Amino acid sequence: MSSFSRLVRFLAKDGMTYYGDALVPSGASDLTRVAQAKVIQGTPWGQHQITERVADVQKLLAPLAQEDIRTVRCLGLNYEQHAIEPVTAVTGPFDKIPVCAAAQEGEGLDYECELVAVIGKEGSNISQSQALSHVAGYAVGNDVSHRDWQLKRGGGQWGLGKGFDKWAPFGPAIVSTRLIPDPQNLRITTKVNGKTVQDSNTGDMIFGIAKTISILSQGTTLLPGDLIFTGTPQGVGMGRKPQVWLKDGDVVEVNLEGVGSCINKVEFEKTKAKL
Amino acid sequence: MSSFSRLVRFLAKDGMTYYGDALVPSGASDLTRVAQAKVIQGTPWGQHQITERVADVQKLLAPLAQEDIRTVRCLGLNYEQHAIEPVTAVTGPFDKIPVCAAAQEGEGLDYECELVAVIGKEGSNISQSQALSHVAGYAVGNDVSHRDWQLKRGGGQWGLGKGFDKWAPFGPAIVSTRLIPDPQNLRITTKVNGKTVQDSNTGDMIFGIAKTISILSQGTTLLPGDLIFTGTPQGVGMGRKPQVWLKDGDVVEVNLEGVGSCINKVEFEKTKAKL
Repeated sequence: MSSFSRLVRFLAKDGMTYYGDALVPSGASDLTRVAQAKVIQGTPWGQHQITERVADVQKLLAPLAQEDIRTVRCLGLNYEQHAIEPVTAVTGPFDKIPVCAAAQEGEGLDYECELVAVIGKEGSNISQSQALSHVAGYAVGNDVSHRDWQLKRGGGQWGLGKGFDKWAPFGPAIVSTRLIPDPQNLRITTKVNGKTVQDSNTGDMIFGIAKTISILSQGTTLLPGDLIFTGTPQGVGMGRKPQVWLKDGDVVEVNLEGVGSCINKVEFEKTKAKL
Repeated sequence: MSSFSRLVRFLAKDGMTYYGDALVPSGASDLTRVAQAKVIQGTPWGQHQITERVADVQKLLAPLAQEDIRTVRCLGLNYEQHAIEPVTAVTGPFDKIPVCAAAQEGEGLDYECELVAVIGKEGSNISQSQALSHVAGYAVGNDVSHRDWQLKRGGGQWGLGKGFDKWAPFGPAIVSTRLIPDPQNLRITTKVNGKTVQDSNTGDMIFGIAKTISILSQGTTLLPGDLIFTGTPQGVGMGRKPQVWLKDGDVVEVNLEGVGSCINKVEFEKTKAKL
């Protein structure tokens, strides 16, 4: 298992990309503005070592490189579905969310703040009592969704309502379970252009993290690097009256207590679809 | 792009596991019983070289190692849905299909013979006319499904009706597009315990391979190592009158013309679910 406390991946001021263990001032609990990290040699799921070398952070990236992520699993709204998304859906905590021409058709671009559980130990048929021992740490994510594509236009048919490139920012760090002994008592919020639209607590989850992991692992091997987006609380745009959809240029911030924020700007792409 | 003609991965008689380019007698078109292969140094999507060294095949494995597969995409029955499955669902052409305790509940274990298109070149927003140039080759696969879990018991809810460990055998080789210039004119069949239950032609697909790739790539980067299970023709157990479900010990053979067969035995596991 990993020995990090707060795993980050970052572009350093020296121009290199590193894994690191974030350095935070004593008492600080928000990792959104990490300035320095101890460089990690190796990769999180293989042999690795936290060195004493401190690097200056230029920009935080997704806490795992694409090749170190295996399966991205996402619980749906109200847990009515569970889907897997491609690794290309993942992006960094401060990256833009590109909306391709096809996804600009129809209304329904929506946010979903979610606790992300990162699997660190392989297992299948995991009991609820053992489930949290398979978790390396927690992050916050935004499982951006297009309701019209997802629910009407054939998101069901083609599954294209969620897994577009970079529609699943997560980060800003993976905080070790050592530092978050009770993941079911954390405030979780979303702001759009500074206005709070989701404000809940992970204690309100319909299925807790342990039960979710146990169910997902039945007959199914969970691997180090699996990300589990554990579902979002009330307050998504689809559920509001009137409904509120994300627009070009909107800035969305999802925050998890003890972890920090992903802050991402929505950017409509200008190129046409080439079907 | 890869230079292989018929990519196999195999346990050799010397006890090692290799990638190889299958050696087949002149005129043979079924790769199910490959006996020898030229050893490939490197991995299919990285630097690699087909050597002149010939190794004896003990057992054919899934043509790609788990770490060389990225996203497993599966078109649903009648194309009414598209789902992504975990890489742990993949298994070799002659491996057993284990049915865990949870999946033994209820009826509905079913087969789906499918042409599998293997992406060899990265791309997004791919036009139909360019789509086949992103394919490295074709294999045959069996997208085993549990209809009760998939459709009633919450397969929709939890997505557990398809992606169980080793429920997606594929192989026996990835045959280069050079050798299959027209993938829409291949006979595709399923036999259960020797009896033919599906017998169709890839020309009958509702959406062709090029259109499927184009749609899936909108706003979504397809990567080398993505597997696309392109949907199954009529004749699945669910559609038969009376319905026919796979049982413990059944042997299922899916075959694609010019490629060969996956032959897999269904094995119900004895261990209980630990929820």
